[in-house]
Amino acid sequence: MPSISSKGKRMPASPIRKLVPFAEAAKKKGRKVYHLNIGQPDIPTPQVALDAIRTIDLKVIEYSHSAGFESYRRKLAAYYQQHGLDINHEEIIITTGGSEALLFAFNSCLDPGDEVIIPEPFYANYNSFAISAGVIVKPITSRIETNFGLPGMEEFEKLITPKTKGIVICNPNNPTGYLYSKEEMLQLGEIAKKHDLFIFSDEVYREFCYDGEKHFSALELKGLEEHVILTDSVSKRYSECGVRIGALVSKNKEFMATAMKFAQARLSPPTFGQIAGEASLETPKSYFDEVYNEYIERRNYTVEALNAIPGVFTPKPKGAFYTVVRLPVDDAEKFCQWLLEDFEYQNQTVMMAPANGFYATPGLGQDEVRIAYVLKIEELKKAMEVLRVALEQYPGRR
Amino acid sequence: MPSISSKGKRMPASPIRKLVPFAEAAKKKGRKVYHLNIGQPDIPTPQVALDAIRTIDLKVIEYSHSAGFESYRRKLAAYYQQHGLDINHEEIIITTGGSEALLFAFNSCLDPGDEVIIPEPFYANYNSFAISAGVIVKPITSRIETNFGLPGMEEFEKLITPKTKGIVICNPNNPTGYLYSKEEMLQLGEIAKKHDLFIFSDEVYREFCYDGEKHFSALELKGLEEHVILTDSVSKRYSECGVRIGALVSKNKEFMATAMKFAQARLSPPTFGQIAGEASLETPKSYFDEVYNEYIERRNYTVEALNAIPGVFTPKPKGAFYTVVRLPVDDAEKFCQWLLEDFEYQNQTVMMAPANGFYATPGLGQDEVRIAYVLKIEELKKAMEVLRVALEQYPGRR
Repeated sequence: MPSISSKGKRMPASPIRKLVPFAEAAKKKGRKVYHLNIGQPDIPTPQVALDAIRTIDLKVIEYSHSAGFESYRRKLAAYYQQHGLDINHEEIIITTGGSEALLFAFNSCLDPGDEVIIPEPFYANYNSFAISAGVIVKPITSRIETNFGLPGMEEFEKLITPKTKGIVICNPNNPTGYLYSKEEMLQLGEIAKKHDLFIFSDEVYREFCYDGEKHFSALELKGLEEHVILTDSVSKRYSECGVRIGALVSKNKEFMATAMKFAQARLSPPTFGQIAGEASLETPKSYFDEVYNEYIERRNYTVEALNAIPGVFTPKPKGAFYTVVRLPVDDAEKFCQWLLEDFEYQNQTVMMAPANGFYATPGLGQDEVRIAYVLKIEELKKAMEVLRVALEQYPGRR
Repeated sequence: MPSISSKGKRMPASPIRKLVPFAEAAKKKGRKVYHLNIGQPDIPTPQVALDAIRTIDLKVIEYSHSAGFESYRRKLAAYYQQHGLDINHEEIIITTGGSEALLFAFNSCLDPGDEVIIPEPFYANYNSFAISAGVIVKPITSRIETNFGLPGMEEFEKLITPKTKGIVICNPNNPTGYLYSKEEMLQLGEIAKKHDLFIFSDEVYREFCYDGEKHFSALELKGLEEHVILTDSVSKRYSECGVRIGALVSKNKEFMATAMKFAQARLSPPTFGQIAGEASLETPKSYFDEVYNEYIERRNYTVEALNAIPGVFTPKPKGAFYTVVRLPVDDAEKFCQWLLEDFEYQNQTVMMAPANGFYATPGLGQDEVRIAYVLKIEELKKAMEVLRVALEQYPGRR
């Protein structure tokens, strides 16, 4: 029997899904499980997108242009322009989700053995895409005590070797909810310029910025036009996770020509998804206001409720819809499993993502979890109550 | 400025799209261009699929299971069972087109530096996926004189090294239209067993088999259950190229568990596409009968018309909707470009794919083109007339 690849063996199992069998078992026992483990919002998809799909009048669902419909790219360029980013439609490739955008970016810029620096904790699938491309991840640790801010320039420079080719950031951040300041972004730009690095900037949560803070895109970095590769997605912005439409945006022409060859190899992004994505650009402002208010309320409630539980600490994140939480437990993964396997409070329990899966440095995040505040306030209230009781009863409490 | 990857530099430009700028220029001059260059059928997508999309009643377009909707996988398993293949839904992962299925297969089975043998001419994007995965393609030449039949076992064995990990076939074949016989498939199975190789079997044209010939799937090879990785797609079967839904099918559990990790990293296949794909399984038999009759007529006409042109030869393919054609020209690529740039007959011209892009061995296919007979008979008639006249006038005629 032929053996699978060593690359395949090194692929990590998804940290978010590791506990799924325990959640399923809990549900089989009739238990209500509050899902704080996954970034699947309950927010409705915009009506304009669903209407566009329901009124499709195509007879043949053909391949589109490998870079995506030109009409969509033009409208998306206008969207970026409205956000102060000088982007035209030839600087955009529509991809199958943000995932494919990142994969094209890695494959176009990085060879096996090349290194990228990523502030940890980070979105766990960056590891998977790096392994796919044979790329080595060098984590740089951001800490809960400093609200997960970007480490200083000297910390980055300690990690830079002749093999370093890029820095990957997610802004606002998944899993921490941290929003990088303009100063932090400028510092990042300086490092990239000084050491001739790519900046892979995952900005899928761009519109989820709170407390009046402004998002500073990597594309705003002056003189870094050849360095910045932006990845984007409709998944979170319009609650269209299943639509699988993203984008790769860059002013680096050589990069775009190379990424196009990867795009041509897979022929085209999904037609239905593009139709929904294009229509979503017409989403009325009232939709975003409602979503914004909903998330602000959820965040405020969740952060306050968490910090009110004895021994629990979480920063107040300024973006996205996640927060990393320190718990008074021996081992957050064991605790999360115990919640699903052995615990119930009024026949309810909670599912969270153990944070160790978001760190590349072994041993970090052992007493942390990621919480996605993607449920309605009433459900979040019940979930927080369950968590409080669970922490009182958990045998491994510290 | 940071440099792109050497992998990116090695990615070939698509041979099908290389001539697109010339076609666009021809159209700008007001010329009618018959597109025989790309496998985009003009056949309507089944009504059941379009209806399913138009009546979607989802409020939130969520992620699906990373392996695809279970309901879809169960119905797809039933489809394979109807075709005599003993497959259950856990042996299926729904992918974003056949392209992603192949990429998951390569990444799960092959490490950088590993070798796969592929009968040439072959679907040019296999090269791109191999470069993506760092895999080396060893071509084994099938020849137009023998209708592109599979080379003998001894030819394969000449190419096998300690690095050889698999054989990739496309059956029925793109670009040749060749349908592998049961005997050829059994021979392939013997080689795979003897040398412990994977068989990557691309069977997206499974239902396009003519002249009463039966398709013999690699999954029917007894004792090869751990070796066979099948890739499939809805693109051609239901004229749903833009839907971007495919499948990875295997009875090898270790392989499937590994491929699932790649599938989880990209979260899920497109939801709308899955809805269309699932509904397509209810396509009435009358649809396929009509499509079948249409393609038989097109093939018969095209092959006959081509062979009636002095100096032109093409085999009569038994599957898919392509045929490779030998032309009496100095250089088929120059000829194809000349057709678009310098030629017109009654203000019409023809676009074809130069076949050299489908061969990995330099110098092969120089006087061959691939023709996709995906146009209506009346259009094919005009295209053949244009080609006949062009070959009379082409300065590089031999």
